[in-house]
Amino acid sequence: MSHGTRWIHHVRKLSAASIPASLIEKGQNRVIDASLTLIRERAKLKGELLRALGGAKASASLLGVPLGHNSSFLQGPAFAPPRIREAIWCGSTNSSTEEGKELNDPRVLTDVGDVPIQEIRDCGVDDDRLMNIVSESVKIVMEEEPLRPLVLGGDHSISYPVVRAVSEKLGGPVDILHLDAHPDIYDAFEGNKYSHASSFARIMEGGYARRLLQVGLRSITKEGREQGKRFGVEQYEMRTFLKDREMLENLKLGEGAKGVYISVDVDCLDPAFAPGVSHIEPGGLSFRDVLNILHNLQADVVAADVVEFNPQRDTVDGMTAMVAAKLVRELTAKISK
Amino acid sequence: MSHGTRWIHHVRKLSAASIPASLIEKGQNRVIDASLTLIRERAKLKGELLRALGGAKASASLLGVPLGHNSSFLQGPAFAPPRIREAIWCGSTNSSTEEGKELNDPRVLTDVGDVPIQEIRDCGVDDDRLMNIVSESVKIVMEEEPLRPLVLGGDHSISYPVVRAVSEKLGGPVDILHLDAHPDIYDAFEGNKYSHASSFARIMEGGYARRLLQVGLRSITKEGREQGKRFGVEQYEMRTFLKDREMLENLKLGEGAKGVYISVDVDCLDPAFAPGVSHIEPGGLSFRDVLNILHNLQADVVAADVVEFNPQRDTVDGMTAMVAAKLVRELTAKISK
Amino acid sequence: MSHGTRWIHHVRKLSAASIPASLIEKGQNRVIDASLTLIRERAKLKGELLRALGGAKASASLLGVPLGHNSSFLQGPAFAPPRIREAIWCGSTNSSTEEGKELNDPRVLTDVGDVPIQEIRDCGVDDDRLMNIVSESVKIVMEEEPLRPLVLGGDHSISYPVVRAVSEKLGGPVDILHLDAHPDIYDAFEGNKYSHASSFARIMEGGYARRLLQVGLRSITKEGREQGKRFGVEQYEMRTFLKDREMLENLKLGEGAKGVYISVDVDCLDPAFAPGVSHIEPGGLSFRDVLNILHNLQADVVAADVVEFNPQRDTVDGMTAMVAAKLVRELTAKISK
Amino acid sequence: MSHGTRWIHHVRKLSAASIPASLIEKGQNRVIDASLTLIRERAKLKGELLRALGGAKASASLLGVPLGHNSSFLQGPAFAPPRIREAIWCGSTNSSTEEGKELNDPRVLTDVGDVPIQEIRDCGVDDDRLMNIVSESVKIVMEEEPLRPLVLGGDHSISYPVVRAVSEKLGGPVDILHLDAHPDIYDAFEGNKYSHASSFARIMEGGYARRLLQVGLRSITKEGREQGKRFGVEQYEMRTFLKDREMLENLKLGEGAKGVYISVDVDCLDPAFAPGVSHIEPGGLSFRDVLNILHNLQADVVAADVVEFNPQRDTVDGMTAMVAAKLVRELTAKISK
Amino acid sequence: MSHGTRWIHHVRKLSAASIPASLIEKGQNRVIDASLTLIRERAKLKGELLRALGGAKASASLLGVPLGHNSSFLQGPAFAPPRIREAIWCGSTNSSTEEGKELNDPRVLTDVGDVPIQEIRDCGVDDDRLMNIVSESVKIVMEEEPLRPLVLGGDHSISYPVVRAVSEKLGGPVDILHLDAHPDIYDAFEGNKYSHASSFARIMEGGYARRLLQVGLRSITKEGREQGKRFGVEQYEMRTFLKDREMLENLKLGEGAKGVYISVDVDCLDPAFAPGVSHIEPGGLSFRDVLNILHNLQADVVAADVVEFNPQRDTVDGMTAMVAAKLVRELTAKISK
Amino acid sequence: MSHGTRWIHHVRKLSAASIPASLIEKGQNRVIDASLTLIRERAKLKGELLRALGGAKASASLLGVPLGHNSSFLQGPAFAPPRIREAIWCGSTNSSTEEGKELNDPRVLTDVGDVPIQEIRDCGVDDDRLMNIVSESVKIVMEEEPLRPLVLGGDHSISYPVVRAVSEKLGGPVDILHLDAHPDIYDAFEGNKYSHASSFARIMEGGYARRLLQVGLRSITKEGREQGKRFGVEQYEMRTFLKDREMLENLKLGEGAKGVYISVDVDCLDPAFAPGVSHIEPGGLSFRDVLNILHNLQADVVAADVVEFNPQRDTVDGMTAMVAAKLVRELTAKISK
Repeated sequence: MSHGTRWIHHVRKLSAASIPASLIEKGQNRVIDASLTLIRERAKLKGELLRALGGAKASASLLGVPLGHNSSFLQGPAFAPPRIREAIWCGSTNSSTEEGKELNDPRVLTDVGDVPIQEIRDCGVDDDRLMNIVSESVKIVMEEEPLRPLVLGGDHSISYPVVRAVSEKLGGPVDILHLDAHPDIYDAFEGNKYSHASSFARIMEGGYARRLLQVGLRSITKEGREQGKRFGVEQYEMRTFLKDREMLENLKLGEGAKGVYISVDVDCLDPAFAPGVSHIEPGGLSFRDVLNILHNLQADVVAADVVEFNPQRDTVDGMTAMVAAKLVRELTAKISK
Repeated sequence: MSHGTRWIHHVRKLSAASIPASLIEKGQNRVIDASLTLIRERAKLKGELLRALGGAKASASLLGVPLGHNSSFLQGPAFAPPRIREAIWCGSTNSSTEEGKELNDPRVLTDVGDVPIQEIRDCGVDDDRLMNIVSESVKIVMEEEPLRPLVLGGDHSISYPVVRAVSEKLGGPVDILHLDAHPDIYDAFEGNKYSHASSFARIMEGGYARRLLQVGLRSITKEGREQGKRFGVEQYEMRTFLKDREMLENLKLGEGAKGVYISVDVDCLDPAFAPGVSHIEPGGLSFRDVLNILHNLQADVVAADVVEFNPQRDTVDGMTAMVAAKLVRELTAKISK
Repeated sequence: MSHGTRWIHHVRKLSAASIPASLIEKGQNRVIDASLTLIRERAKLKGELLRALGGAKASASLLGVPLGHNSSFLQGPAFAPPRIREAIWCGSTNSSTEEGKELNDPRVLTDVGDVPIQEIRDCGVDDDRLMNIVSESVKIVMEEEPLRPLVLGGDHSISYPVVRAVSEKLGGPVDILHLDAHPDIYDAFEGNKYSHASSFARIMEGGYARRLLQVGLRSITKEGREQGKRFGVEQYEMRTFLKDREMLENLKLGEGAKGVYISVDVDCLDPAFAPGVSHIEPGGLSFRDVLNILHNLQADVVAADVVEFNPQRDTVDGMTAMVAAKLVRELTAKISK
Repeated sequence: MSHGTRWIHHVRKLSAASIPASLIEKGQNRVIDASLTLIRERAKLKGELLRALGGAKASASLLGVPLGHNSSFLQGPAFAPPRIREAIWCGSTNSSTEEGKELNDPRVLTDVGDVPIQEIRDCGVDDDRLMNIVSESVKIVMEEEPLRPLVLGGDHSISYPVVRAVSEKLGGPVDILHLDAHPDIYDAFEGNKYSHASSFARIMEGGYARRLLQVGLRSITKEGREQGKRFGVEQYEMRTFLKDREMLENLKLGEGAKGVYISVDVDCLDPAFAPGVSHIEPGGLSFRDVLNILHNLQADVVAADVVEFNPQRDTVDGMTAMVAAKLVRELTAKISK
Repeated sequence: MSHGTRWIHHVRKLSAASIPASLIEKGQNRVIDASLTLIRERAKLKGELLRALGGAKASASLLGVPLGHNSSFLQGPAFAPPRIREAIWCGSTNSSTEEGKELNDPRVLTDVGDVPIQEIRDCGVDDDRLMNIVSESVKIVMEEEPLRPLVLGGDHSISYPVVRAVSEKLGGPVDILHLDAHPDIYDAFEGNKYSHASSFARIMEGGYARRLLQVGLRSITKEGREQGKRFGVEQYEMRTFLKDREMLENLKLGEGAKGVYISVDVDCLDPAFAPGVSHIEPGGLSFRDVLNILHNLQADVVAADVVEFNPQRDTVDGMTAMVAAKLVRELTAKISK
Repeated sequence: MSHGTRWIHHVRKLSAASIPASLIEKGQNRVIDASLTLIRERAKLKGELLRALGGAKASASLLGVPLGHNSSFLQGPAFAPPRIREAIWCGSTNSSTEEGKELNDPRVLTDVGDVPIQEIRDCGVDDDRLMNIVSESVKIVMEEEPLRPLVLGGDHSISYPVVRAVSEKLGGPVDILHLDAHPDIYDAFEGNKYSHASSFARIMEGGYARRLLQVGLRSITKEGREQGKRFGVEQYEMRTFLKDREMLENLKLGEGAKGVYISVDVDCLDPAFAPGVSHIEPGGLSFRDVLNILHNLQADVVAADVVEFNPQRDTVDGMTAMVAAKLVRELTAKISK
C-alpha cells in the first residue's frame, strides 16, 4: 500500500492551470522558510540548554527525514522516524547503552524533530530543492554546539544531502563506514539521480568522502563492482565475511579526514534479525556482528544515519523498530562525549 | 508498544536543574511561534491558490493532529495522519467519492499538513498550551477562505480544542453529530481533564455546541448517561438502533446554529469493519450504516474530524486505514461546495 | 499446531506395563477427589461471601472447562478460558454491561476458576469419567446459593455434561436457546459419542431439554436435519433469518420447564465478527443480531455457556477474545438478579 | 511482492536475438496444443464418467485460470485457484451446500484443473493468444455434456474470454449477474484493453450479453456511469441498496437469452467479510446479502466465475479462501441439476 | 491486552466491606490447602509409578507456574505453560532429544500440572503467601523420588520462590547458571520486591546460591553492574561473548554445592530466534549457542526453569513456543538419569 | 487448513461404483500422456532455444513439483513452486547471483513449468504411478541438452523419484549433498513408503547414491541413526557443527560418481532464517552457513532440488519465499556453466 507519490504535487500540477507561477513560487518559498525556521528554533533551544548545562563536547541530536519516494520498490521508510523514537523510549527496555551511556541525560541525546518532508512536497517543491532543504537542516543542527546530527531516515537517498552538508560544514571530506546489503552506488536507477540506489555515487562524485568502506554487501551487480572500483571504494562482501571479520571488528578511521560518518542501512542485517525492510536479502550480518564493528571502531564520529527501516513490513510487535532503535542508541553512545 | 509519554518532556524536567526558567520559556515560545507560522504559510498558499482558481464556496482542507497521549489505554492514534493520507491516495481505488465529487480537484480537497505535536511536547510544552496551539491552528486554516478544516486525529481529546476554535471563530455554538462507541463525556478520566474520554464534557461546559447527537453508543456507564442528561445530549445507543435507524438516516441539523460539526470516532464502527482501534467494542455500526447517515444528512458542515484510528492495531494490509480514508473522502464531499 | 491429544494419557499407557492397575487407579481417584475439592472450596468461599453481603437472588459464576480434544478439526478451544477472563477485565473497556449491570459487584459476577482438565487427562482418566467430573463441578457450583454457572469452553462437547448436571440438579428438563452455525446433533462423529458435533444428540436422548431452539445454522447435512426432526428441535437456518428475525428477537422461553439454558457457540457469528474459531462458516449472525436476541429474551436463565472460541486462530489484537468476553458480560447481566 | 510480470516472456525477448522467429513460433504452438490437449483429456474423462453414471442434466466443473497480470494494482489472484480448491474440501466444514446439494457426488461437482497460464506466458505467448486459449479451454469443457464451467480466477480480466466462449458456444447472448464493487467497464485502463477494469466493456461491445446487472457498486467514476448508460447496463450502487434490496433478492433472469452467467468478484463483499482482495473498498455487501441474491435467483445458470480472491492479502487463517470456496459451493448448487 | 492485574483480588477488596475478615481468611486457607493437595496427589501418583517402574535416578517433572503479574511491561507469560506443553508434544517433531533421550519414557519426563495461580489470586491471596505457595509446590514435587522440578513460567519473578525451595529442601546453596538478556538483580523495581527484575537480588540475599553465572546480558544499568559486584555474581555480557565463548561452552559447576540450578529466560536468545518475549533486546545468543552451553555443561542439575515466554507476542505459527519447548526438552535430557 | 488429501481421488472412489474400470483407466492414461507431452514440449522449446543461442554447457531449468500429500504434518509445500518463482523475479532485488552469474540470461536459467500433480491425482492416479510421472518428467528435461533439472518442491518425498531419474538417466549412482534438519531415512513413516520422511531410505536401497552427506541434522531418532549406519550415510549433526564447519565449507564431491546432486530442505536453516516450514526445529544453520557450504563445494552439479518451503506458514511479507528463491538462484549459479 506504499503509494506515497500520488498524493503530493497537487500544487505543482497547478502550474499548468491559469494560476500565475509567481504566486505559487512565493508561497512555496514562504513554506520552505517557515520549515527551516522551525528546525532552527528547535535546534537553538536544545543548543542553548546544553551549553547552559555544560560538560558536553559532542552530543547526538536526532533529526528525522521522513522521505520514502526515492525508493524503487516500496516507500514505507517515510513512516519510520516517529516509530523509531517510540521504540527508543519504549518501556520494555531501560535507558542505558551497552557500554554505560545514559540516554536520559540531554548531554548525551536530544531531538530536534522531523523535517516536514511530506508537507513541503505537497506544496509542489521538486527534489533538487528538497535535497537542499535536507542539507540545510543538517547544517542548522551543526550550527548549535555541541549538537551532532544523528539522522533518522527515510530511504537511503537522504544520505547524499546529509553527507554533503556535513562535509561542507566541516570544510572537507569525511571517512564513511557504510553498512548495507547493497552498494547504492549505481549511476542512476530508473533515471532517478536521487534514487536510494545512487546516493553513494553522488557522494563520491562530489568529493565528500575520503575513504568509503562498504560492509555487508550481498546484492551487487557488475555495475556495482565497477563503480566501486572507479571511486576507490573498499567493498567487503558477505561471501568473505568470515575472513574479513577480525579486521572489520578492529577498524580505525578518520585520520587525516574531517571526521567519520556512519551510515547504517537496516538491511545490512540478515532479514532474520530485521524483517522490516523493503529489500529482503538473506545472508546478512547478525545484530551482534554490527555491534562488534561499531563498538570497536576507533573514530571521531561527526554524524550518522539509520535508514531504510520500513514499518509497513515489520512484525506486529515491532521487532525491527526495536532493532533500529538500538542501532540509534548505540550510535548515540558512539557520537556523544 | 505504545509508550509515547516517556520520550517527551526532557526539557520540562530540566526546569528542576540549574537552568534559568526564562531561557527555557523563551525557547519554547520561539518554537511555538515557528510551528504556527509554518501552518499559516501552508494554509495561506492553499487559500491563495483556491481564490485564484475561483469557483469554490467551501473546500475541505486536511489538518493532521498526531496527538495520542490523552488516551487511557493505547497511544497509537499519534501515528495515524500520514497513514490516512497514504490510504486516501492509494492506487487501489480511484479519486471519485460515492456521489461523484472529484478529490483530485483542489477546490474539493487540499492539505495543510500536520501540527508538529511531538516536537512541541518534546520541548516541554504542557497540555494547556498544547491545546491552545491546536485551537490556534484550526483558526489559522479558517482564516483562509474557502478552506474548512477536516482534522485527522489523533485521539478524541483533540475534538475539544478543534470545536472550541470553530465555535469561537464562527461566533456561536454549532450542532454536532458525534459517531462513537463511547460518549466521551466523563467529567475527567483518571484525573485528566483533557482525557479522550472527557472531550465532550469540555465542549458542552464551554457552550460550544447547541445540539449534540451521539450515535453508535454501546459502552456507556451510569455516569455517562447522567452527564448526557445533564448537558441535554441526544444519546442514541446501539441497543435501539433498529428502531432509531430511519430517523438517523434522515437527519437535518444546524438550523439556528452557526453550522454543523461532524466528529467520527472510527470505533463507532463494529470492529469487524474497523479492527484498527484502541478500544474494541463489538456490536457497532456497519460502514454502510455510517455512510447512509452521512449521505442523507442535511447540513452546512463547517468542519469535521476523524479520530482514534490506531495503525498499530490495524490488519497487515491496512484495512482500517482504508476505512478511515474513505470516511475522510466522503466527509470531504459533504463539506465542499 | 493443535495436537493436544498426544501429550496426555502417559499414565493410561502404563496399564500395559508391569505396573499394578490398582496403583494407578487409586492415584487417579485421589487426583480426581483433590480436583473436585479445589472447585468446591472456591465455590464455597464465593457463596459464603455473597450470602454475607446479601441482596443477590441469582449471580453468575464463571467456571472454565479448558477441554479441546473432542473437536474434529482443531483443538485450540482448550486454551480459551484464561484469554476470555483477560478480555473481560481488559483496560480498553469499562465494567458496565449495555443495560447497566455493574460487573465489579460480586453479587453480579464471581469466578470459581478452571476444572484442571489437562492435568486429569494426563493422569490417564478416560472421557466417561472426565465428563462426569465436568458434571460434578457444575453441580458443586449450583450447591452454593445464589451462584449460577456461566461456563467458559472449551469445545462444544462440554455442553452435554453441563446441561445434564443442570437438569439433574434442578430435577427436570430445561429449555435451551442454542446459537450456532452447526446443529451439533449427529449421532456420533468419527465414532466419538462425546464429539463436539454430537453433544445435543446426547442432551436430547437424555431428556435434559424440553424445547431446543437452534439459531444461526448454516452448515447442516441431511442427517443434521433428520436428527432435528427426530428430536423435535426447532431449527432456524440463516437462509431464512430475515423472515425469522422479528420472532427470534422476541422470544419467551422456559414456561413449564425448570428454567432456560443458553449455549453460545462463537461461530454462530459470521467470521467477519469472530474470526477466532475453528470452523469458519461465512454467512452468520452479526454481533448486534446476537445481542438483540439475548437482550429481548424473556426467561429465567439458570445457566449458560460460551464455547468454541479458538485463541490460536484469533487476530493478533485478540478481537474474538473481546467478542467472547462481551458475550460473557451480557450473559452475566441476563443471569444475575 | 506481486511482480509476476517480470519473470515471464523470457522467450519473447529472444525474438530480438539471433534466433529464427519460426523456431520460437513452432515451439509455442506445440506448447499451446499440448496445453489444450491436457484440458481436453481431463474434461473428457470427467464427461465420460458422468455420462456412464447417468442422471445429471447439468454439472458444475471447476476450471482454474491462474492469471493475475491484467490487474492494475496487485497480482496475487494468479495464486488463487489451488487455495480455493483446498478450502472447498477443508476438513473444517462438510460437503453439503446450504440447500442440501451433496458436493461429494460427481454429478454435482467435478474438476478439470488449471489452464497452465504461467507456463504459456513464460513461453512468450502474448495476451491476444492467451485470451483465445482461455476461451478455447472453456469451450472444451462445454463440449462434454453435462459439464458446465465454473471458472476460478484469476483477476477479473478473465471474464471476457470466458463469457465470449460461453456465448459463442451457445450461439447467442446471455444475461449476466455481475456482483462487484467496481463496474469494470472502462474503455481501457492504462492503455490495456484486457485490463481487469475493462472486461465488461469488451463483453458488451462483443454483443455477448443481453442484460447486464451490476450489484454492489461503490467505486465508480463519471466514465463508469457513462459507459454503463452507453451499454444499457443496469447498475445498482450500494448507496441505494436498502431500497433495491427486495427487488435484487427476487430476480428472474435469462428469459429470451441463451442462459444466465454469474460473475462474482469477491470484492463485492465488504472487506470485513472478505479482506483478501486487492482493492479494499469499504461499504459492501454482507456474505448473507450475496447468498440471499443467489439463492432466490430464478435462472438457468450456464456458467459462472469467482474472481479477484488474492491469497497474498488474506488473513493468516485463510478466511477469504473459505469465503471464496463457499461462493463456489453455492454456485455449484445453483448450476447443477 | 495484558491486564491480568485488574481481574483479581475481588475478594481482597471485600475486606473493606461489612464482611468479617475471618470468614474470608478461612475460605482462603481452605482454597490454598486444596490447591496444594491437588499438586501433592499429582506428584504422588507420578512418583509411585516411577518407583514401581524402577531404573530412574533422576527424572524431570514439569510444574507450571502461570504467573505474569510481576512483570513491569506485559503480562503474557501467565499464559505460557499450556502452550509450551502443546509444543513439546507437537506432531511436527519427534520425541527424541538431540543426544538421544526418549521423552515418551516416563522415567525421563512426567508432568504434575500447573499451580492454580490465577484462582488463588482471585481469592484475594497476596504475593507473600503466593510466593510461599510456589515454594511449597516445588518442595512437594521434590518429596517424590526421583522427581526433579522443571518449572514452566510465568515471568522471572518465580525463580526466587523456586530456587529458595530447592535450596531449603536440599539443605544448602546451589550453583546457578542463569541465561538472560537482563541481570534481574535490581533491589526492587517500581517498589515491587517480587518484581521479575529483582528475583536474583532476593536469591543472593537469601544465601540460596553459591555461584551465580549470568550469560547473555545486554541490557544492564549501572545499578545492575553494582549489584552484581556486591553479590559476587559472574556476569558475562554479550559484548564479550566471542571472547568468553569457549569457556562458557565448557563449564563445570556444582562442586561443593548442593547441585546446579539452570534458569533460562527465553530472552537470552536474540529476538530473531525468539520473538515471543515481552522485552525485545537485539544482539543475543543464537539457539545453537544456548544448546552448546547446555550440552557441554558438566553438572548434577537438580532443578531448572524456563521463563518469560510470552505467547501474546509469538508469531502466528508459534515459533517461540517451539523454541521454549525445545529448551524444556533438552533440559529434561540434562536432568534425567 | 492443509487438507489437500480430501479433494482428490474422486475418480478412484468411482471404481467401486458401476463404472467399468477400463473406462477410468483409459481416461487416466490419456491424461498422463497429455501431462508428459506438455512438459516435453516446454522442455523441447527451451532446449532448442539454448542450442540455437549456443555457448551453454550446462543450464539450470526449473521444474515445479507441487506435491504435498506425503507430509506427515502439513501439506502447504504443494503451493510452493509459483511462490518461489515470484520471489526469484521480485522487484526488490536484482538478477545477479552473489558470484556474478546473470539470471536473465536463458543460458543460465530457464523454466519448464510445473508437473500438474493435483490434476493427475484428482483423476484417481495412485502414488506408484505418480512417482513414475515425476521421474519421467525429470528425464524429459534431461533429454534436452544442456538443460539440467532444478526441481522446486513440494515436500521431500519428491527427491526419491527425482534422484532415481537422474541416476537412471546418467547410468550410475551420484553423490548427494543433503541439507536438512531431519535424515528422512526412516523405513516408512506411518506405513507410507513414499513418506517425506523416507525418501533417502528409498534412494539408498535403490543404489542411486554413492555417497550421501547429511548436514544440518538436529531432529533424529535412534532409528534415524541406525538407518544412517546401515546405508553408510555420512551424518553431520548440528551438535558438532562448530567442529565440522571447516571441513563442510571445503567439500569436494562426485569423483568416481556420475555427478553431484544437491537436495536442500529449507528447514536445514534455523527457523529464525526460514520460518515458513512445516517442521520448526530450532538450532539450525544460518543462511550464510548454507551459502558458504554451497559456494565452496567443488563438484559437477547435475541436478538439485529445493523442498519443504510451506507458504502457508511464511511471514506476511514472504521472507521464506525470498530465502527459498535465493537458494534456487545460488544453486542455478552452481549448476550452470
